[in-house]
Amino acid sequence: MIFVTRRERFNAAHRLFREEWSDEKNLEVFGKCSNPNWHGHNYNLYVTVKGIIKPQMGYLVDLKTLSKVIREHVINQIDHKNINLEVEFMKDRVASTENIAIAIWEKLVQPIRELGVELHCIRLEETENNAVEYYGRLE
Amino acid sequence: MIFVTRRERFNAAHRLFREEWSDEKNLEVFGKCSNPNWHGHNYNLYVTVKGIIKPQMGYLVDLKTLSKVIREHVINQIDHKNINLEVEFMKDRVASTENIAIAIWEKLVQPIRELGVELHCIRLEETENNAVEYYGRLE
Amino acid sequence: MIFVTRRERFNAAHRLFREEWSDEKNLEVFGKCSNPNWHGHNYNLYVTVKGIIKPQMGYLVDLKTLSKVIREHVINQIDHKNINLEVEFMKDRVASTENIAIAIWEKLVQPIRELGVELHCIRLEETENNAVEYYGRLE
Amino acid sequence: MIFVTRRERFNAAHRLFREEWSDEKNLEVFGKCSNPNWHGHNYNLYVTVKGIIKPQMGYLVDLKTLSKVIREHVINQIDHKNINLEVEFMKDRVASTENIAIAIWEKLVQPIRELGVELHCIRLEETENNAVEYYGRLE
Amino acid sequence: MIFVTRRERFNAAHRLFREEWSDEKNLEVFGKCSNPNWHGHNYNLYVTVKGIIKPQMGYLVDLKTLSKVIREHVINQIDHKNINLEVEFMKDRVASTENIAIAIWEKLVQPIRELGVELHCIRLEETENNAVEYYGRLE
Amino acid sequence: MIFVTRRERFNAAHRLFREEWSDEKNLEVFGKCSNPNWHGHNYNLYVTVKGIIKPQMGYLVDLKTLSKVIREHVINQIDHKNINLEVEFMKDRVASTENIAIAIWEKLVQPIRELGVELHCIRLEETENNAVEYYGRLE
Repeated sequence: MIFVTRRERFNAAHRLFREEWSDEKNLEVFGKCSNPNWHGHNYNLYVTVKGIIKPQMGYLVDLKTLSKVIREHVINQIDHKNINLEVEFMKDRVASTENIAIAIWEKLVQPIRELGVELHCIRLEETENNAVEYYGRLE
Repeated sequence: MIFVTRRERFNAAHRLFREEWSDEKNLEVFGKCSNPNWHGHNYNLYVTVKGIIKPQMGYLVDLKTLSKVIREHVINQIDHKNINLEVEFMKDRVASTENIAIAIWEKLVQPIRELGVELHCIRLEETENNAVEYYGRLE
Repeated sequence: MIFVTRRERFNAAHRLFREEWSDEKNLEVFGKCSNPNWHGHNYNLYVTVKGIIKPQMGYLVDLKTLSKVIREHVINQIDHKNINLEVEFMKDRVASTENIAIAIWEKLVQPIRELGVELHCIRLEETENNAVEYYGRLE
Repeated sequence: MIFVTRRERFNAAHRLFREEWSDEKNLEVFGKCSNPNWHGHNYNLYVTVKGIIKPQMGYLVDLKTLSKVIREHVINQIDHKNINLEVEFMKDRVASTENIAIAIWEKLVQPIRELGVELHCIRLEETENNAVEYYGRLE
Repeated sequence: MIFVTRRERFNAAHRLFREEWSDEKNLEVFGKCSNPNWHGHNYNLYVTVKGIIKPQMGYLVDLKTLSKVIREHVINQIDHKNINLEVEFMKDRVASTENIAIAIWEKLVQPIRELGVELHCIRLEETENNAVEYYGRLE
Repeated sequence: MIFVTRRERFNAAHRLFREEWSDEKNLEVFGKCSNPNWHGHNYNLYVTVKGIIKPQMGYLVDLKTLSKVIREHVINQIDHKNINLEVEFMKDRVASTENIAIAIWEKLVQPIRELGVELHCIRLEETENNAVEYYGRLE
């Protein structure tokens, strides 16, 4: 068993808020992250997969293919976008780093399985001080 | 003569576009950076000042004071904001990294002079790959 | 279950030594890290907490609150201090990165529980080459 | 139980290929990483060990000693070398990051045990986007 | 006048040596960097251009175009290559960081002029400790 | 003319203060940086030299030699030391980043000249937010 991590990056706008709350209530709960005119981030996304090395190749998974899968299912839909308004997989979810990480997990778990490896961890860094890690639904 | 650099950070949403152009024309000129629903960045701002060391203190300028000036005149007005809609000093300017750097220079040149030092350079990093440096109007 | 990491930083002086040993013996065991006149570091502290996302908020824990707890219980007591002489929670402990990490765990485990989440890991980086991780007393 | 990580670095040339395949077949499978004239990387190697703190010392392991062991068994044999042609411990293995990480584990597991601690993880970064982690043969 | 920097990266193998010298003489002069079996690096290339902002656009130069020019004239010819054997613009030059930086300057100065801006600086980082800057032939 | 930069690192304790002032006065002027029990930093030192490439070698200066000169004249005297108490070249100077940078310039300018190149810049980073650059006495 070996673990391989690929980093991809995206830049996006977002806002923390609940539609059913007033701007005042949202501001009270989420602070400046709730600015109705949006703000944004350079996100660093680290996708870790695990499995058994293909003996002939010497690698777990072709990284160009892994990168392509991440870009196709995630980056192309979120990069240079408004996470609240335009990202289908974030519909009806608060646009927090936690929820983005979980949604990315859900988008990638099946396509990555089709590459013959298992998704192990989604790590999403919002700033150099804040990061989230999700390992799927642990039971 | 010595040079001292202070880094401050801000996160903001923006869009490259000209109001008098259609979304299509803007898209053609500015690409995905023109997304009408905004996108955003973690900006790194480096403010370099120059001058003569205060002999008693051994420093050029008190960094807590410099940091306070930058936050008061720039960060508080742009952090967690929409650069196109909410930042007074970017009004009527395309929200490019170049223009933000120049506007920050204009905001800081006088308050920094009042600290007894000269503003030397505004460096603004939009991503790990893209940066701008402005040294004022060179003649 | 999701994991959220907050980075805080502090700068401090320290010395590796045992009071009951001579400076020579300390030097022999700890090398230049035992300099009786102290040396110091910029420490990076990463606090990882885990738990269930608050469904209304979309986040695990308010990061401003988490940051405040870390600053109140740890940073304010160790930043710009001499770890051997001035930090109450390091009293009678060798001022190694390992012991600092464990002491920070002990300081934070209860206040973080009161935020409704569990402390998962204390990661403390002393230099870009040396780091320690502590996950509590594993049994 | 505590975990301590030491970073060491090396620069090396390599090529992904199988000797029994033609250059064309290798190119097809491994892409530009299979260039017959080699390419190279700055590798970051993170060695994580675990164990119980030595109570007198306050540390898990003397980091100078750990660094010396890593340099003696790994860095001196791979730094500024051609991984395919010159590194004895990579003989008959595809020179992938995965295989290098596993071979480094095998080289270090015994010498690190002799320091009184257990090897926990080999993390090897090939670029800022690609990394591998190996925790030994999990059963 | 404003300065804009674009980073691109490449991985390559090289060797410091003079063909007319023996391996022994090369080893004596260049040390382990002269290994006849090559070694390699992840190079960071920073291309800084300068000029007057296009008033309509608000930018100095379209960064996608600048990136394309750098990739077409430099990266495509050096990435995943052997700098001594395969890079036409390094023919008959010692493959030092200094000479690579100068050769990249020579390759880029004209194409960048055709974008309506002036090449200002080539910065090439070989490792996190070693870097070269070239500003053209100063007279 | 080409510029080459070498990074070296050191960890040290220091305190900002003037001996002739009381602790209270020092605290008032220098804030927590004046803690009488010291604090410390991981300093990054960047030494930039300039000159003409040696045509036979293809490099400006042998980096191992440059590194050795920096370590001999600076690092060995300041690393793991108390800058106020133990560093001969900082005697009778306030231990500010500015003064350390100037003192390092004075220590290195002659030995670097003896390598056949000119010292161009001393850059000293105290934290990720604060840095100083000194280019010698400009006239």
